[in-house]
Amino acid sequence: MLDLNGWRRIVKLDPARPLSNERLKEVCSWGLDALVVGGTGGYGLREVLSLLARLRRCDLPLALEVSDAGAVCPGFDVYFIPMVLNSTEVDWVIGHHQTAIKRYSEVMDWEKLVVEGYCILNPDASAARLSRARTGIGTEDVVAFAQLAEHLLALPIFYLEYSGTYGSIEVVRAVRGVLQRTLLWYGGGIHTTEQAAEMAALADAIVIGNVVYDETPLFCLPA
Amino acid sequence: MLDLNGWRRIVKLDPARPLSNERLKEVCSWGLDALVVGGTGGYGLREVLSLLARLRRCDLPLALEVSDAGAVCPGFDVYFIPMVLNSTEVDWVIGHHQTAIKRYSEVMDWEKLVVEGYCILNPDASAARLSRARTGIGTEDVVAFAQLAEHLLALPIFYLEYSGTYGSIEVVRAVRGVLQRTLLWYGGGIHTTEQAAEMAALADAIVIGNVVYDETPLFCLPA
Repeated sequence: MLDLNGWRRIVKLDPARPLSNERLKEVCSWGLDALVVGGTGGYGLREVLSLLARLRRCDLPLALEVSDAGAVCPGFDVYFIPMVLNSTEVDWVIGHHQTAIKRYSEVMDWEKLVVEGYCILNPDASAARLSRARTGIGTEDVVAFAQLAEHLLALPIFYLEYSGTYGSIEVVRAVRGVLQRTLLWYGGGIHTTEQAAEMAALADAIVIGNVVYDETPLFCLPA
Repeated sequence: MLDLNGWRRIVKLDPARPLSNERLKEVCSWGLDALVVGGTGGYGLREVLSLLARLRRCDLPLALEVSDAGAVCPGFDVYFIPMVLNSTEVDWVIGHHQTAIKRYSEVMDWEKLVVEGYCILNPDASAARLSRARTGIGTEDVVAFAQLAEHLLALPIFYLEYSGTYGSIEVVRAVRGVLQRTLLWYGGGIHTTEQAAEMAALADAIVIGNVVYDETPLFCLPA
C-alpha cells in the first residue's frame, strides 16, 4: 500500500474531459505527489483505460476514485472509495458500496482500497446534487463530520470538497483543529498560486482539478 | 481500552426491564466476559445510573450501548456505538452519531468508544422497526455488509442481530467465512444451552438478552 501521508499536491483528472498531451506533460511537471482519476459521470471503462494508458508515462502514483463500479479497471496503485458523509441518502454513505461488494467481491483487491470520507459543501457541484448532500451546514456540523471520520470510523482521509468554488478558510481551519490521525484533503476552486498556498498551509493535501482544463498558463504549487 | 478479542459470552441488560437481585446474582455466575447495558428505549439516564450502580458488584467489564445520547453517563468501561449498516435511513448509519458529536464532543472520551456494525435481521424487532432496517435481505447481502464492515470501515465488531428470534445458522456460517479481523457477534433468541453452543461455535461472541428476563432456570453457556 502506498503511503498517503506524504501526499501534498494531487491533480484530479476527469476521464470525461479532453486533455491535450502538451497540457498533460505540463501538469506532470508541477511537482505533484499523485494523479487521481475521477469524475461524476459521463465516462465509462473505455475512457478510464485510455486515460490510464496516457498517465503511465508520468511516473507518478496513480489512483482511481471509484464513483461507478462498472468503470473500474486494474492497473492503478490505489482505489479511492468515496463515502459522502453529509449525504442525506444511505446509498451514498455505504449503500452503493455494499451493492458493489456483493457483485465484485471475488475480484476486489481489498489491500488497494482506501476510503475517503467526503464532506461536499458547494450546492452547485454535480457531486453534491447527485449525492443529495447537505451543503448548507455550519462549521460545527462539518467539524462533527470530521470527528466522526476520525474517531468513530477511523477513516484515512477526510475530504473537504468545494468542487467548482473556492472554500471557506474558516471551515478548513476549524477542521484542521480537530484532525490528528485522519488526513485532511481540500479540493475546490484553486485557480491561483496564492489559493493553493493558503489551503496547502492547512490541509495535508490539496486536490487540483478544473485549473488543469482551464489552461491557466502559470501555476505554481507550494512546496 | 479493554481487549474485546477475549469476549465470548456477553449478557445484555435492558434498563427498562425489571430484574431481581437474585436473578442478577445468578446471571453473574454464568461465567460471562462482560455485561452490556442497552435497549431500544423506554428508559432514561435515571434507569441507566440505577442499573450501573447494581452492576458494579458483579466484577465484570461493563459496557453501555448508546442508543440515546441523552441517556449516557460516566462509569462504564466502554461505550458501544451502534451503526445500523442495513438501515435505509442515513440517521441510523451515521446521522444521529454526527448530531451527538456536535452536541457532546467536548465531554466525549473518544478512547472509550467502540463502533458496532449492526445488521438487524428480524423484521419484528423494535430495533429493526426503529432503524427501518432492510431485514428481508439474502445471505449474499449480509456477507457484503460484513465485508464492508471489515474492509472498508475496519469496524471492530460486526453484530448479527436477530433480537427476539433465533437466527439462521447458514447466514452466521457464511459471515464467519469472510471475517478475519472484525469480530463477529451474534445476538438473538438464544434460550437453550444447545443454541448457545451452536452460535458460539461460529461467532466470536454471543449476546444473551431475553433469557435473563424469562427466568430460564438452568442455562449453561459454552466454555
